[in-house]
Amino acid sequence: MSGQHMSAEIAEQPAVFASIVDRQAQIAEVAAKLAERRPRFALLAARGSSDHAALYAKYLVEVLLELPAGLASASTTTLYGAKPDLSDVLFLTVSQSGGSPDLIETTEAARARGALTVAVTNNPSSGLNSVAELSIDIGAGVENAVAATKTYTATLLSLYLLIDSVRGGQGQAAAPLAALAAEALSTTESAVDDAVARYRYVERMVTTGRGYSSASAAEGALKLAETSYLAARAYSGADLLHGPVAAIDADTGVVAVTSAGKGGEAMRDVVNTVRQRGADVLAVGSAAADMPASSRIVLPPCAEEVAPILEILPLQRLALGLSLARGGDPDNPRGLSKVTRTR
Amino acid sequence: MSGQHMSAEIAEQPAVFASIVDRQAQIAEVAAKLAERRPRFALLAARGSSDHAALYAKYLVEVLLELPAGLASASTTTLYGAKPDLSDVLFLTVSQSGGSPDLIETTEAARARGALTVAVTNNPSSGLNSVAELSIDIGAGVENAVAATKTYTATLLSLYLLIDSVRGGQGQAAAPLAALAAEALSTTESAVDDAVARYRYVERMVTTGRGYSSASAAEGALKLAETSYLAARAYSGADLLHGPVAAIDADTGVVAVTSAGKGGEAMRDVVNTVRQRGADVLAVGSAAADMPASSRIVLPPCAEEVAPILEILPLQRLALGLSLARGGDPDNPRGLSKVTRTR
Repeated sequence: MSGQHMSAEIAEQPAVFASIVDRQAQIAEVAAKLAERRPRFALLAARGSSDHAALYAKYLVEVLLELPAGLASASTTTLYGAKPDLSDVLFLTVSQSGGSPDLIETTEAARARGALTVAVTNNPSSGLNSVAELSIDIGAGVENAVAATKTYTATLLSLYLLIDSVRGGQGQAAAPLAALAAEALSTTESAVDDAVARYRYVERMVTTGRGYSSASAAEGALKLAETSYLAARAYSGADLLHGPVAAIDADTGVVAVTSAGKGGEAMRDVVNTVRQRGADVLAVGSAAADMPASSRIVLPPCAEEVAPILEILPLQRLALGLSLARGGDPDNPRGLSKVTRTR
Repeated sequence: MSGQHMSAEIAEQPAVFASIVDRQAQIAEVAAKLAERRPRFALLAARGSSDHAALYAKYLVEVLLELPAGLASASTTTLYGAKPDLSDVLFLTVSQSGGSPDLIETTEAARARGALTVAVTNNPSSGLNSVAELSIDIGAGVENAVAATKTYTATLLSLYLLIDSVRGGQGQAAAPLAALAAEALSTTESAVDDAVARYRYVERMVTTGRGYSSASAAEGALKLAETSYLAARAYSGADLLHGPVAAIDADTGVVAVTSAGKGGEAMRDVVNTVRQRGADVLAVGSAAADMPASSRIVLPPCAEEVAPILEILPLQRLALGLSLARGGDPDNPRGLSKVTRTR
């Protein structure tokens, strides 16, 4: 059956979350070592879906740890051979497979330049784990679909527990997530079906969010592009108003990620502006009911800093449903393989 | 006449470059103060086209200064009120108008937290200049078109001169740029006309580049989206192979930025892969003649680290030409104003 792997892996997520929360103590051990080193700056390295997990982690580092952070550009090491002084730097590499040669090379180089290197992977025996000083196993189990789903959310949750623990937290906001994810998957099913019907023939979609939810917008666009071959792209709600809004019209489907909290509240103007341009807006999140949107997928409430772990669930289902409705097979997207070897 | 401002401002760029190089000593003074402070990390804050200039600066900082660097997320300050320790941090804010309230607020906050703040604007009396400790005036003159062209390249050139001077350089690679830009604008005219004809009816375009040229790909996509309302998006050549390549098919126009150097060389595989998927590939850059592309816009050779200053010129012309061919007015893109007020 087309899409059976992706469908099964989406459904596994509540169980994966429960198992990660159960293994919280292992993550806290890594967090303790990390906190001891008192990094002053964080660099995050990743590609593809993991890059969106890294974007989420960047917000966590900046807001919860109040450390400046940036996404590393692999090519400055792999192509240009830059040798920066990375003492006091936390270098966090995020990769489902742990096998991307460019990430292994940049992590090794960062460690040699004095950074504290931490690998977050779904494969404890990966090349990346072997070069990093510390590692976190997201423990999501084998992922068969080419489109990452459970490994994405398992990475987000692991990153949240890590960073929350570094600041001395007990992962409180994460405790209810397994139950909330199960609730979200069941209560949003018909709204997702409606959205699949609505966007069956759309050719371009824009996803948008602010703050923590920027990561959900980015990952949602990637899922739509890689499984349904849509021209889908993500913009931060703020950037959207700086130019790209001109390309939004009645033919554009806009997905606005709007969870309760500061990021979601800042999206209200964006949703209004986009609606005034005649675009169809689907609001997704715990604040969706409250947004001036065309349609809504309402999620259960949770702490804002863990909302991305729930927000992506209906977007994964939307990508799966659109792919099937359009005659594709999301388990075998044309031209994709699970580990991409770039330098 | 539609597009007259954009057209005139594109043509002004060689003269703008010459005038910036003439004022190089002013930039060197700021560079000397910056070098004295020995920053250990750099954060870059910007939105829209300036964000692509900031991406270029990130590569310059990482490769030429060998400092870790990241793009700042404004919302962590403006929405979430994070108060990171920014001593030893260079906080570089890039804004044509210098008037974006969120950038003023984040720059002020960064200065209060100990960062060395530097504003790069086209308006020495802007709010941003008044809150930053040091400022650079890109001196591009009034820009009337809504789509940034000369202010974008003037910002790149100013950033290059600044960062090259911090490492003790004399801006050597920049000296020939005014002449090279004039040459590029005149020798690529018919190739740009051909590309306008070729993409007259295209609905989706992807732009891609690696290393320094990532900025050109990002800015090229924005120009196309904001003036021609195309679904255009940019991917780093490496990221493109990690998923989005699935959405590329015979209906996609791909612009591959390929200048001589390490970034361009790393694009060869990307161009091959995309061509094998049946997509039309337009190679743009000084190494374009050498790429397995469908068509080419060949630019004069220059040092790789300043290539983005030339690469964007034919892409600006392509965006202008496509906008006019499709019945638009690039000077009045629907829904855009010059200063966007987001928080």
